[in-house]
Amino acid sequence: MINFQTSPDQYKHWKLKIDGPVAQLSMDVQEDQTLAEGYKLKLNSYDLGVDIELADAIQRLRFEHPEVRAVVVTSLKPRIFCAGANIYMLGTSSHAFKVNFCKFTNETRCAIEDDSRHSGRRYIAALNGTASGGGYELAIACDEIYLVDDGNSAVSLPEVPLLGVLPGTGGLTRLVDKRKVRRDRADVFSTLAEGLKGKRAKDWGLIDDSFPTSKFQEAIDARVGQVVNLHPDENTQIGIKLNPLAFESTDDTRDYKYVSVKLHREKRYADLTVRGPESDLPTTPDEILEMGDAYWPLRAFRELDDALLHLRVNEPEIGLACLRTEGDIDDVLAVDKTLAANRDHWLMREMLLSMARVLRRLDLTAKSFFAIIEPDSCFAGSLLELALSSDRVYMLSDPNQRNSVATSELNAGALPMSNGLTRLQSRFLAEPDKVDEVLAQENPFDTEAAEEAGLVTFAPDDLDWEDEIRLAIEERTSLSPDALTGMEASLRFAGPETMDTKIYGRLTAWQNWIFQRPNAVGPQGALTNYGKPTQAQFDYKRT
Amino acid sequence: MINFQTSPDQYKHWKLKIDGPVAQLSMDVQEDQTLAEGYKLKLNSYDLGVDIELADAIQRLRFEHPEVRAVVVTSLKPRIFCAGANIYMLGTSSHAFKVNFCKFTNETRCAIEDDSRHSGRRYIAALNGTASGGGYELAIACDEIYLVDDGNSAVSLPEVPLLGVLPGTGGLTRLVDKRKVRRDRADVFSTLAEGLKGKRAKDWGLIDDSFPTSKFQEAIDARVGQVVNLHPDENTQIGIKLNPLAFESTDDTRDYKYVSVKLHREKRYADLTVRGPESDLPTTPDEILEMGDAYWPLRAFRELDDALLHLRVNEPEIGLACLRTEGDIDDVLAVDKTLAANRDHWLMREMLLSMARVLRRLDLTAKSFFAIIEPDSCFAGSLLELALSSDRVYMLSDPNQRNSVATSELNAGALPMSNGLTRLQSRFLAEPDKVDEVLAQENPFDTEAAEEAGLVTFAPDDLDWEDEIRLAIEERTSLSPDALTGMEASLRFAGPETMDTKIYGRLTAWQNWIFQRPNAVGPQGALTNYGKPTQAQFDYKRT
Repeated sequence: MINFQTSPDQYKHWKLKIDGPVAQLSMDVQEDQTLAEGYKLKLNSYDLGVDIELADAIQRLRFEHPEVRAVVVTSLKPRIFCAGANIYMLGTSSHAFKVNFCKFTNETRCAIEDDSRHSGRRYIAALNGTASGGGYELAIACDEIYLVDDGNSAVSLPEVPLLGVLPGTGGLTRLVDKRKVRRDRADVFSTLAEGLKGKRAKDWGLIDDSFPTSKFQEAIDARVGQVVNLHPDENTQIGIKLNPLAFESTDDTRDYKYVSVKLHREKRYADLTVRGPESDLPTTPDEILEMGDAYWPLRAFRELDDALLHLRVNEPEIGLACLRTEGDIDDVLAVDKTLAANRDHWLMREMLLSMARVLRRLDLTAKSFFAIIEPDSCFAGSLLELALSSDRVYMLSDPNQRNSVATSELNAGALPMSNGLTRLQSRFLAEPDKVDEVLAQENPFDTEAAEEAGLVTFAPDDLDWEDEIRLAIEERTSLSPDALTGMEASLRFAGPETMDTKIYGRLTAWQNWIFQRPNAVGPQGALTNYGKPTQAQFDYKRT
Repeated sequence: MINFQTSPDQYKHWKLKIDGPVAQLSMDVQEDQTLAEGYKLKLNSYDLGVDIELADAIQRLRFEHPEVRAVVVTSLKPRIFCAGANIYMLGTSSHAFKVNFCKFTNETRCAIEDDSRHSGRRYIAALNGTASGGGYELAIACDEIYLVDDGNSAVSLPEVPLLGVLPGTGGLTRLVDKRKVRRDRADVFSTLAEGLKGKRAKDWGLIDDSFPTSKFQEAIDARVGQVVNLHPDENTQIGIKLNPLAFESTDDTRDYKYVSVKLHREKRYADLTVRGPESDLPTTPDEILEMGDAYWPLRAFRELDDALLHLRVNEPEIGLACLRTEGDIDDVLAVDKTLAANRDHWLMREMLLSMARVLRRLDLTAKSFFAIIEPDSCFAGSLLELALSSDRVYMLSDPNQRNSVATSELNAGALPMSNGLTRLQSRFLAEPDKVDEVLAQENPFDTEAAEEAGLVTFAPDDLDWEDEIRLAIEERTSLSPDALTGMEASLRFAGPETMDTKIYGRLTAWQNWIFQRPNAVGPQGALTNYGKPTQAQFDYKRT
């Protein structure tokens, strides 16, 4: 059972040091503190446990340290920044684990860029030693990359030449799409095991600059000084603490305060229920600051995030989650109104951005989602996004019971998908006018109106409801889980693609393909044979 | 050895009937006329041989029948339009063959859309019976879809529920991106083995209309009449004939008039040489019409297309092609000038569009390409695109020999990549101004200038040249062919994505992944067990 919750006082592999507007996030991987047996995390290589700490640190910076303007990402080990994902860990992991591991590390790197883009925090990769593979991919997720010029340290993506796999944590995509390295140079770099350093690395756009060892710290400090002095008066806010998320669990349940998971293992599906907020929650930023991480939107979506990660990694046989909500629509809409009205306040902004990231995690989860809308549910505004994220929406039609859904201002752009569209825009690609029509509706939609508006897939009446839901679940969970993963990855992301979707679509899909190829993972494969006296042997047929 | 050349008089599976401005392209698959042993092409199911004829028919329409304004795609078999790719063929094919088969069928469907978009020919799918799987994917590549309402005929994508694989010929992408079917409805449709018909198929946007059997032909005729009467006076041109491409071949050579392939089998690479045009080619449309398919741009690029397909399918162990040219830069530029000056003439337009398709086929070929630029080469204008398509460009630097490359007007937009950018735009994403700078240069670039301009990856001098090329080839062909395929698919397509690139990137990569999964192709897999008394058994772990 992998636990995704941690906090700085529990970190084994990272040190987070805050000094006014500057954070130093330093990698110092303890090679024996691994998540599984059979490998050592030498040379600041990482496994999922290391990345869980990194993800936590980035999340905490946003809520606990709003005063931080610059984050220096560096290493406490001499001459090595980071050697990337541990190869022996990859070599001994199941295919499914490798895929989930890469997805999580990708989400962590996208979270760095989300912070930079939306919260203006500047990430500076201070490479005091070699950054290879995932090490360079971590650097390239930062805004700026500086490399020590010690005659030895280099940046490299040695996956293709050494391991027969891709730099699968966004490296190839970010090379050409973010840093816009010329494609032929990207080709040379990505096949050069030893990588590049100094002038050529800078000329080709792989790093922003390099400095001799004796001047390195000084140069980084100077750059950090420039960044934090750009807006010296801003950001004197004091953060809020992110406390651990308590939950109770049994073999087939996991209950947080606002989120419950109920597993139906034999039927391979789960009910995932989100409870709406209490009535009369505070409406001013000061009161909300006071309330801190207990405030519903932050707490509920953090819990949802943890539940999704748990389902992904610890419950692989669960193929379908039925998304349900419980609560009062008006209470959700009241919270949405407060968030929308105060979105310029740093804490409301961070909450909205955090909710958006959780919803994107949902979009990217390789499980089917059905929204099940029944009386006493509260699929409104931010929680309506759960239905809009779902592969299908079932809504009970019963004239004797009130059952409704509602939109809020938050459905209009605050919670975008990875492709840059809102979920309503994605839904109504064929009829873009419907987006505004649906948003303009002041009253909740009853079942008939929701179906008419295109928000609902099926609206069985009370006589058919139970049978229809049961059959839909049975049918879904009987299908090939692999075909469903590929199908959902295609149907969920209609419309434009962005660097993020290219990483999760094009790059990840190819990497997953390669992660199954005998040339990588077979007995003669390059990944299998790395570090052994035996050499990889390839079937050279091009596919 | 698979032969990609054919012509209507040789067709086994299609009938192409031209009646003034209307072409009828009718599928009538002969079940015993298969490309390989072990399966029968029942119910208008297809193998690569069937699709080679379809691709040929579409290409011929463009050159031989410019007068055609509407193409009715239908079936000569009662109650069945097309059952899609033959499942037993897929079940008995190697992974590499499946991947190449799907790529070719995708290119054929994109060629239909290219014709519609750029040449204004309207494709009307007249589904006189059920269109399932690849059958519906063929329909959805057309502009309009009409389904007979006979109480039985349906459209369907049964791959996920029946076979545990994806509709991999663009179906999922076109559902949500082209026809913009709502994602939840697309989800339902793609998991419903029996598909949909009549009103619901129309309401959901899967078809444009349906008509009862007795009225079907009349309705199609009426629609075709509308299409051809839109511009009754246009397009009275007479086409040119596409003659067979003669070539001589030995075990390790294949020589067309303008294209030569030389295989270095033990070293797993090929030299692929394109010879430039003769001097003093005609410059007026009338003269070029007279010259027909012997005119260099058409002939040379048709030959290149055939050579690429041959390398893809018949020479899987060749991992790298060294692209070379021979001829006079001025002669290439003269042809480019003629094409650009007359691009409003239908034949010049078709030639340019055909060249663009061939170059996109090159971009999408799963082999590495190095351009090798030596004296007496002619990488200019349209042939410079070969260098710009390459993963790397090597150019000899020798002060004693003239060696140059040049741009033409055709590098400015006539030959776009699948992502909608020119290859110069893709190359200079970081410095967009360079595109115009390079295009503005009137004289050819010598090696130094080409390197300075960013057109060249490496420019070794004459002392190092041979060693450097030899080492680069050896190094490239030693790498994992699978990792290279994934790497090249990522680095070649920086920048925006389009429906085409989503099909070749996201959808195809996932399909290739699934095509390796035991749940599809293992002994208990759904594809393996289709039609057998045994049932598929899945490992239900979600990945």
